[in-house]
Amino acid sequence: MKIETVLSPSLFHQITDLDKKAVVVIDILRATSTIVTILNNGAKSVIPVMEEDEARAYKGKGFLVGGERGGETIPGFDFGNSPFHYSTELVDNKDVILTTTNGTKCLEMSKNAKYVFTGAFLNLNALVAHLKMLNLDIVLFCAGWKDKVNLEDSLFAGAVAALLPEAEIDDSTLLCKHSYTSCSSNIFSALQGSNHFLRLAGKGVIKDIEYCCKLNEINLVPELRKEKLVAANLI
Amino acid sequence: MKIETVLSPSLFHQITDLDKKAVVVIDILRATSTIVTILNNGAKSVIPVMEEDEARAYKGKGFLVGGERGGETIPGFDFGNSPFHYSTELVDNKDVILTTTNGTKCLEMSKNAKYVFTGAFLNLNALVAHLKMLNLDIVLFCAGWKDKVNLEDSLFAGAVAALLPEAEIDDSTLLCKHSYTSCSSNIFSALQGSNHFLRLAGKGVIKDIEYCCKLNEINLVPELRKEKLVAANLI
Repeated sequence: MKIETVLSPSLFHQITDLDKKAVVVIDILRATSTIVTILNNGAKSVIPVMEEDEARAYKGKGFLVGGERGGETIPGFDFGNSPFHYSTELVDNKDVILTTTNGTKCLEMSKNAKYVFTGAFLNLNALVAHLKMLNLDIVLFCAGWKDKVNLEDSLFAGAVAALLPEAEIDDSTLLCKHSYTSCSSNIFSALQGSNHFLRLAGKGVIKDIEYCCKLNEINLVPELRKEKLVAANLI
Repeated sequence: MKIETVLSPSLFHQITDLDKKAVVVIDILRATSTIVTILNNGAKSVIPVMEEDEARAYKGKGFLVGGERGGETIPGFDFGNSPFHYSTELVDNKDVILTTTNGTKCLEMSKNAKYVFTGAFLNLNALVAHLKMLNLDIVLFCAGWKDKVNLEDSLFAGAVAALLPEAEIDDSTLLCKHSYTSCSSNIFSALQGSNHFLRLAGKGVIKDIEYCCKLNEINLVPELRKEKLVAANLI
């Protein structure tokens, strides 16, 4: 098993043989943390869409629609990107449309992979167990922020690598793993100097960040199947 | 003072206002370690060139010429990229032409910056002292390997950031700094799983890697001036 980490969408073109690999899209603050929460709260699926207009068209057909641009809820949508917006009462047994700044773009870029999953600290152990079971080469695809590297996604890549010590890992993954080793005792604290933390803290969503740093609250792995994210069948 | 780290040449386009910033090109194994060694051994300058043919033309004019492609000395050249090739006897008071796989390309890409320096563990403290004195925004430009992120250049960026705790740093720099914190007690040991280490070790140049991991052996900062690297005037 090999692990490559893509630290920014600008580096994704370096990945070859995508059709033989399992890609894990990582957008810790907050898309992939929110996606796993929506599915855990009973939604049938999360349908990621790239464009606001496409999401708005679904809204017209009666779907629940969530999304943000630049960290703000899109006017007229049912939800923003906060995991706390998606309660069981609202999403149970529903298909939920989600468009976000960075994460949705990465899901679209990954769609030709053998498998596409999403990862978050919330479902770290479930994800790693599933990857071990599949035993494929893995691409950890950090969404970053507007094509820039971000700390939280990189640390999560390091956390996955730390739990797969038998894998052959590339230098990007090594960098993340060493960084995670420095920070693993308190992810929330490590993020406090980071760019995304400062941006979200300014919007008053510290409780979202605390939630997104929680480990293994959810035993579920979102998997992209026919353009919908659904709970993968875990063994 | 702000610090941005460019983890791969593929991300360099994200840097703005280059003409107001000091860029530090980092190619630890081995270009920037070799460059500082050549100047420390008495060379008047190191002239970085992009293409093998350009270097060969200098050779025809009587210059000393060094370079590698894919880690191997170019046939007919006076030196490879090993710092041990460039003894004082050979380079004292000479201009030395150097072409390398990754580092030279980054110097060329950086040439519109206000200042361009090269950094290596060998001259870490001298570099940091010089950057403090200049008090400009800094770009730490990791050469990587064929546009991929590498561990040794990233760790060096982290080492620079660790010595400039008052600077405002971006997430790439934070990632490198946390990683350096994990590895600072033994850089050579940390590099043993890295891609470049494995490639160079296969070529039998472990002693080069050990040398390139030494801290503060040289009190000199190479600076690019009119397409030549010369020793900067330190205060």
